[in-house]
Amino acid sequence: MNKSCIIAQSGGPTAVINCTLLGIVEEAKRMGFEHIYGALNGIEGVLNHRIVELTNQTHDQLQLLMSTPGAALGSGRHQLKSTEQDPETYQHIQKVFESLGIDCFFYIGGNDSMDTCNKVANYFAKTNFSCNVIGVPKTIDNDLQGTDHTPGFGSAAKFVSTTISEIYVDTNSYKKGRVTIVEVMGRNAGWLTAACKLADLSNTPVDLIYLPERPFDLNSFLQDVQAIYNKKQKVLVAVSEGIRDANGQYILKTVAQNKNDSFGHTQLGGVAQTLCDIISEQLSLPVRHIELNLLQRCSAHISSAADAQEAYNCGVFALQMATQGHTCKMVSMFRDSQYHISLQLKDIDNIANAVQIVPDKYINEQGNGITDDFVTYALPLVQGEVPQHYKNGMPQYYQLDLPLVEIKL
Amino acid sequence: MNKSCIIAQSGGPTAVINCTLLGIVEEAKRMGFEHIYGALNGIEGVLNHRIVELTNQTHDQLQLLMSTPGAALGSGRHQLKSTEQDPETYQHIQKVFESLGIDCFFYIGGNDSMDTCNKVANYFAKTNFSCNVIGVPKTIDNDLQGTDHTPGFGSAAKFVSTTISEIYVDTNSYKKGRVTIVEVMGRNAGWLTAACKLADLSNTPVDLIYLPERPFDLNSFLQDVQAIYNKKQKVLVAVSEGIRDANGQYILKTVAQNKNDSFGHTQLGGVAQTLCDIISEQLSLPVRHIELNLLQRCSAHISSAADAQEAYNCGVFALQMATQGHTCKMVSMFRDSQYHISLQLKDIDNIANAVQIVPDKYINEQGNGITDDFVTYALPLVQGEVPQHYKNGMPQYYQLDLPLVEIKL
Repeated sequence: MNKSCIIAQSGGPTAVINCTLLGIVEEAKRMGFEHIYGALNGIEGVLNHRIVELTNQTHDQLQLLMSTPGAALGSGRHQLKSTEQDPETYQHIQKVFESLGIDCFFYIGGNDSMDTCNKVANYFAKTNFSCNVIGVPKTIDNDLQGTDHTPGFGSAAKFVSTTISEIYVDTNSYKKGRVTIVEVMGRNAGWLTAACKLADLSNTPVDLIYLPERPFDLNSFLQDVQAIYNKKQKVLVAVSEGIRDANGQYILKTVAQNKNDSFGHTQLGGVAQTLCDIISEQLSLPVRHIELNLLQRCSAHISSAADAQEAYNCGVFALQMATQGHTCKMVSMFRDSQYHISLQLKDIDNIANAVQIVPDKYINEQGNGITDDFVTYALPLVQGEVPQHYKNGMPQYYQLDLPLVEIKL
Repeated sequence: MNKSCIIAQSGGPTAVINCTLLGIVEEAKRMGFEHIYGALNGIEGVLNHRIVELTNQTHDQLQLLMSTPGAALGSGRHQLKSTEQDPETYQHIQKVFESLGIDCFFYIGGNDSMDTCNKVANYFAKTNFSCNVIGVPKTIDNDLQGTDHTPGFGSAAKFVSTTISEIYVDTNSYKKGRVTIVEVMGRNAGWLTAACKLADLSNTPVDLIYLPERPFDLNSFLQDVQAIYNKKQKVLVAVSEGIRDANGQYILKTVAQNKNDSFGHTQLGGVAQTLCDIISEQLSLPVRHIELNLLQRCSAHISSAADAQEAYNCGVFALQMATQGHTCKMVSMFRDSQYHISLQLKDIDNIANAVQIVPDKYINEQGNGITDDFVTYALPLVQGEVPQHYKNGMPQYYQLDLPLVEIKL
């Protein structure tokens, strides 16, 4: 097949973003693509002519991608202006693609990346440039519309739920413990924080879980914490980084203002730290705050096998659909009642820049816990473990060590 | 064998503290011990008569201990006064042991726990009570004298080095990155922070590593950070929580004082956060601080198989030595040049309350990195992975659900 494609990655990496890359590359190889290119650091790699060729990478080299975190091609956060504002950039992209004979372009990313796909695909349509553009989703936040869930979420959920289970067991070792507050990522969507509910299945239930989907009431929170501490002499809390008060203000800010900067960190700490400060001050209970931080998106050593496989399959499907002539679409996952996942294409313009939040049915009435319905939803996503590549007890990762391709415009 | 023993756990748990418990219990079962007791929450369980019997636990139940973090018997931090100050407590312990017919007592713990062993064993010797007392070390800090290393360190080192490798790969995804500072536990010893050097073996070398064994000079640090940032547009730093300045003051305190509380957190944050604040203020570079926190001692899902096996073997050895009549000793590990570990007994009174710090040969001349000699030392300790018990994608832990034994004094 006399075809060529180019792949790029964008936005915050996930533990399985490279599985999608591998899926595209391997399917392109199986289909006999002549050239398989990778643009470095997202769309910027196209603009800066930082492009490598992956066609001759061996199976053994590529296989490491299944357990390599980070974006193997490098990531970026470059956002394109509209075609009206900046037509030169789109011309430039098209010229680079023409010079390489690109037939399809794959962009693995989140909301912003789908917006880039949309703009590029629309420009190509307008200029009648025959290059099919497919977006493949990835985000640990699971906040993308038009798909049952996003690749990357399951692995982050497995890390978060396993880790909070371990924290439960550790803190439970003491008769008289502390209030431990674990801060979980997810921006304005509480999906990843909700994953702490899965700890129930390890017999290590988290006491209180707060998502940004419900207004956070400080007084109710303090009452809940005190009541549980009185009963158990320890409390385990999970909070989403994005929780807000009834006025829609982030808790961190509310507190800083109300307190006249008495918590005046030169750099705002996390919400867990702020809540610990308040508990310590108002309830005089011993506290500990834990931010799971970057580990949530890069702990590939505990990736979910289901997630990794789905991420791979999304890549394969993207390549197949582009080859069949589809463009300006995003790969999405649809589930039936038996959790059979089928892959579909969705119009990308309905998806870009829209946020999918956690529906009401997954949050309990008091807004301090998660329902069993969520467990039914999330459990299939954390199944299985990905075989790791260890050498001498240390993980081995895919190393991108390829020369830049010469671009002649 | 008409013998009975009692086991307790104390201090901060490790990922493999329960492997030692399992080693003692299984060896006692093999030797046909009549009763195998566990005291809950350390020596307090003896004093409060919170004791369970493990004798009839099945192999399948007990096997979960190999991958269960936390202290399965519960931990504590109770310190005994001297026998002169508080003879009643020692009498009480002895009476409880007599009522249960205890022949040997095993205490799994760190420095403080060895001190407890020492006091109890000396009291028993004085009263001619025939009960052999053996301490079995555990600490992620690796700061115990009289042993090549401590059970628990290898698993914490595997978690820390794997995690910092993953952080490297993730942060390396961006062309223009940040100064990322990872804070590692270890109190006044830098062993666990030094383990970040193992990331070299994943081709993910950490740029700067600071241990408490060398005075921390803020100006040299800022110069180092700036120089590396200029070259790479990103810097990865590991700092020990216990780093101090040339006057022996913890960096956190030095800064807070010099700054007249301009960093006035009501609760002191970690040293990584403080250093990030300074870099942001003085170098205007983008920063991120990551505290690995409790995860360092409870991430059983990535325990080192070598460490888990050694922890188990130490338990087996403790039981054997007590049965042979040894008392007031700590199990220690000795290594030959081929990393063959042999177990020995050490006099406990030389060990209790002494701290083993990282020797000079493992720290580079500038005090901002670790030598390859350390890698030779530490690498055998992180070998292999412990099979995990997952059900439905979630870890399953040992659940202690046993009635208290009735004590008749």
